[in-house]
Amino acid sequence: MNEKVLDYVKNNQDRFLAELFDWLRIPSVSALPEHNGDVRRAGEWVVSKLQAIGFENVGLKETTGHPAVYGDWLHAPGKPTILVYGHYDVQPVDPIEKWHSNPFEPVVKDGFIYGRGTSDDKGQVATHLFALESILKVTGRLPCNVKVFIEGEEEGGTGGTADFVTANRDLLACDAVAISDTGWYSPDLPTIVYALRGLAYFHVDVFGPDRDLHSGSYGGMLQNPLNAVAKIIAALQDADGRITIPGYYDDVVELTELERAEFRKVESPEDQVAREIGVPVLWGEKGFSAIERNWARPSFDVNGIWGGFSGEGAKTVIAAEGGFKVSSRLVAGQDPEKVAVQFKDHIERVCPPGVRVKVTYLHGATPVMVPVDSPFITAGQNAIEKTFGKRPVLVREGASIPITATFLTELKAPSIMVGYGLLEDNIHSPDEKFKLSHFQKGIECGVVLYEEFASVSR
Amino acid sequence: MNEKVLDYVKNNQDRFLAELFDWLRIPSVSALPEHNGDVRRAGEWVVSKLQAIGFENVGLKETTGHPAVYGDWLHAPGKPTILVYGHYDVQPVDPIEKWHSNPFEPVVKDGFIYGRGTSDDKGQVATHLFALESILKVTGRLPCNVKVFIEGEEEGGTGGTADFVTANRDLLACDAVAISDTGWYSPDLPTIVYALRGLAYFHVDVFGPDRDLHSGSYGGMLQNPLNAVAKIIAALQDADGRITIPGYYDDVVELTELERAEFRKVESPEDQVAREIGVPVLWGEKGFSAIERNWARPSFDVNGIWGGFSGEGAKTVIAAEGGFKVSSRLVAGQDPEKVAVQFKDHIERVCPPGVRVKVTYLHGATPVMVPVDSPFITAGQNAIEKTFGKRPVLVREGASIPITATFLTELKAPSIMVGYGLLEDNIHSPDEKFKLSHFQKGIECGVVLYEEFASVSR
Repeated sequence: MNEKVLDYVKNNQDRFLAELFDWLRIPSVSALPEHNGDVRRAGEWVVSKLQAIGFENVGLKETTGHPAVYGDWLHAPGKPTILVYGHYDVQPVDPIEKWHSNPFEPVVKDGFIYGRGTSDDKGQVATHLFALESILKVTGRLPCNVKVFIEGEEEGGTGGTADFVTANRDLLACDAVAISDTGWYSPDLPTIVYALRGLAYFHVDVFGPDRDLHSGSYGGMLQNPLNAVAKIIAALQDADGRITIPGYYDDVVELTELERAEFRKVESPEDQVAREIGVPVLWGEKGFSAIERNWARPSFDVNGIWGGFSGEGAKTVIAAEGGFKVSSRLVAGQDPEKVAVQFKDHIERVCPPGVRVKVTYLHGATPVMVPVDSPFITAGQNAIEKTFGKRPVLVREGASIPITATFLTELKAPSIMVGYGLLEDNIHSPDEKFKLSHFQKGIECGVVLYEEFASVSR
Repeated sequence: MNEKVLDYVKNNQDRFLAELFDWLRIPSVSALPEHNGDVRRAGEWVVSKLQAIGFENVGLKETTGHPAVYGDWLHAPGKPTILVYGHYDVQPVDPIEKWHSNPFEPVVKDGFIYGRGTSDDKGQVATHLFALESILKVTGRLPCNVKVFIEGEEEGGTGGTADFVTANRDLLACDAVAISDTGWYSPDLPTIVYALRGLAYFHVDVFGPDRDLHSGSYGGMLQNPLNAVAKIIAALQDADGRITIPGYYDDVVELTELERAEFRKVESPEDQVAREIGVPVLWGEKGFSAIERNWARPSFDVNGIWGGFSGEGAKTVIAAEGGFKVSSRLVAGQDPEKVAVQFKDHIERVCPPGVRVKVTYLHGATPVMVPVDSPFITAGQNAIEKTFGKRPVLVREGASIPITATFLTELKAPSIMVGYGLLEDNIHSPDEKFKLSHFQKGIECGVVLYEEFASVSR
């Protein structure tokens, strides 16, 4: 059966590309209000496509921001339900003068499709749409239940769409989410991202005297609020790079040997990374490699610090107050709300005498992790290996994709990140591109992927 | 002999006040270029006065800033030479609308002379000029050698005048400097300031990656420069408020029991001081009272701190660099140049791995202290006690008066700070005033003071 579908894919590649080009030509820049109409048109393109290939309940869903597209095909009783998530909005094109072709007039050159949204994310979403079309056209049905949910404001933070997910749990209920919005480590190194870190972000104010004081007339009498800022921060991390907050690591899910072995397949030499970012040497929690620390260990970063005099020369002042922004990236097992309480309590505890401290929890994001032995992960690995001939490495990322946390907390569904981008794709930059063969084989891979998903027992 | 001189003082008080008023009417605001001519006129007033009372070698001395006035009377062989220092420039009058009378039209009201420069410093300098006049007119000579040196840019930092001192060591050579530019603790509590702190001021840059990094993509991999800023600062002071730099206290001259007993006569309850400056509790080096810490112990104050994001909300950034300004007030025995080396070495030593640090020594000031058993101090105490009926308490100050360090290093001369101001004098503020009886008795005190100085054996 797959063979016929894959033949259909092969025979329709030129048309698929032409259809993608039509979609890419719509400048759906969600950040710029003057493109609001274009954003909606790009959503309507998805609506038409889903209707054309036989999806049901298809339509634009209004959110407090840009609308999302929804459509489903739910005629595989007993089979898993997969939510396909992606986004049809794109980044602004500035600096436009650095582009070598019109960002909204896609062209193929040297094996790459050039244009805004080619890799991030229309080109990757399109692999799913054309795979679904191919399966339905050839077989009349899908091997599993599929809900397509493509949002229009990912580049602006997904705010209204996340609220929509929370308010529409039944509509979006599923067993797993399939996302193609990530990339490979190199053209020879496909990867599947199975975990993303969360975040807890704080604003801390430290108050001293009720006015700035002269450091001669008062220096030595009182706790200087800026000295106190430093003491508080320094009291939160030890010389081994560990966060000193009691209980902070209690909920952290420890790395397995299998995970560490996977990471070693993709990690760069640490002196090379140090050179790339311009530091004398990498540094962090003892006992973990740089990539392990970034992907699988909580971090502790001061994001801003301020107070007193920062101009030219000298001012002999004791500032009335100072402050800092600090955040901790969280890993699987950690709950941002619990961390927020731990942080606040600890900062109040270590605040030195003579000043007052106010800790404000600005926001949090839940870390997400799909167990590496999840059958949905295996399904993704199988599909890529069967299509591209290489079994993908299982990796994590140090950053967050907030919508995956929403899917986890609201839908209780793991996100399977099967992406086809490359590091060199220039996403968010001029000359964004997407490898043509990855687009074409991505459609084939999608065909296999839904077959693999269908074989997961519920 | 003194009786006749003091009679002369009493008989001429009205004229003295009228002459002072003429001087106060000249708006010699050194900070404002439009008053440059007034500043010079105020200096010329001193020149005329010194010539009129019989001083020699009188004239304006040009500096790189405003001119200073010099004049001498050196006909007391074998007797000490006293340099009388003060300043004839004044602070700006802003906010002018808060004054209850014209700052440059002095008036007497409720026992105070109101006007800019009354207390800081024309009114206090005038006590010396009228005392010298009285002695010379009645006796035809002075009991000791006197050089008068009144500068015109004290309110702007004394820059050109300090250079003038350095370049004219022979002209200004003396055994002691008499300064009336300080105040009493209360109308019942005359004080003599015998020590001022010095200063070493630093600018510190901490460099991390060569660009701002995303805290998700890199957090945990590297030493965050802002975390490092905090770690460096925290490593410079321990929980007992002591500076941790090796050898830092080696040169500090320890307080004597006599000094501590003097301080106790003037110190306010610490909870009252805490309330006045708005902090929950005072804090500092263990084993010393607040006033002892401020006057007689080196302090360690971060004067400014910066780096990264300080706007509204959250930005998940690892800043490429951060920095801070830090200064230490120094006490007798400490050498700013030596401290500068200690600071630099220690900061480089405690700088955590993964970042680079650059320490810039911005400037220093030498601490000054006159031994409390100096006969010139005793002379000042005697003069005040004989005139006002109360023996002055010996105090220090936490701040610096840079010119006193210059007198010490360049002329090897101690500065005897015999002032007649009060805390309520509103110096640098609207409604500056000077107690009329302090002006009048200050002239009498000057008469006694030169007599006392004369009795100090060289």
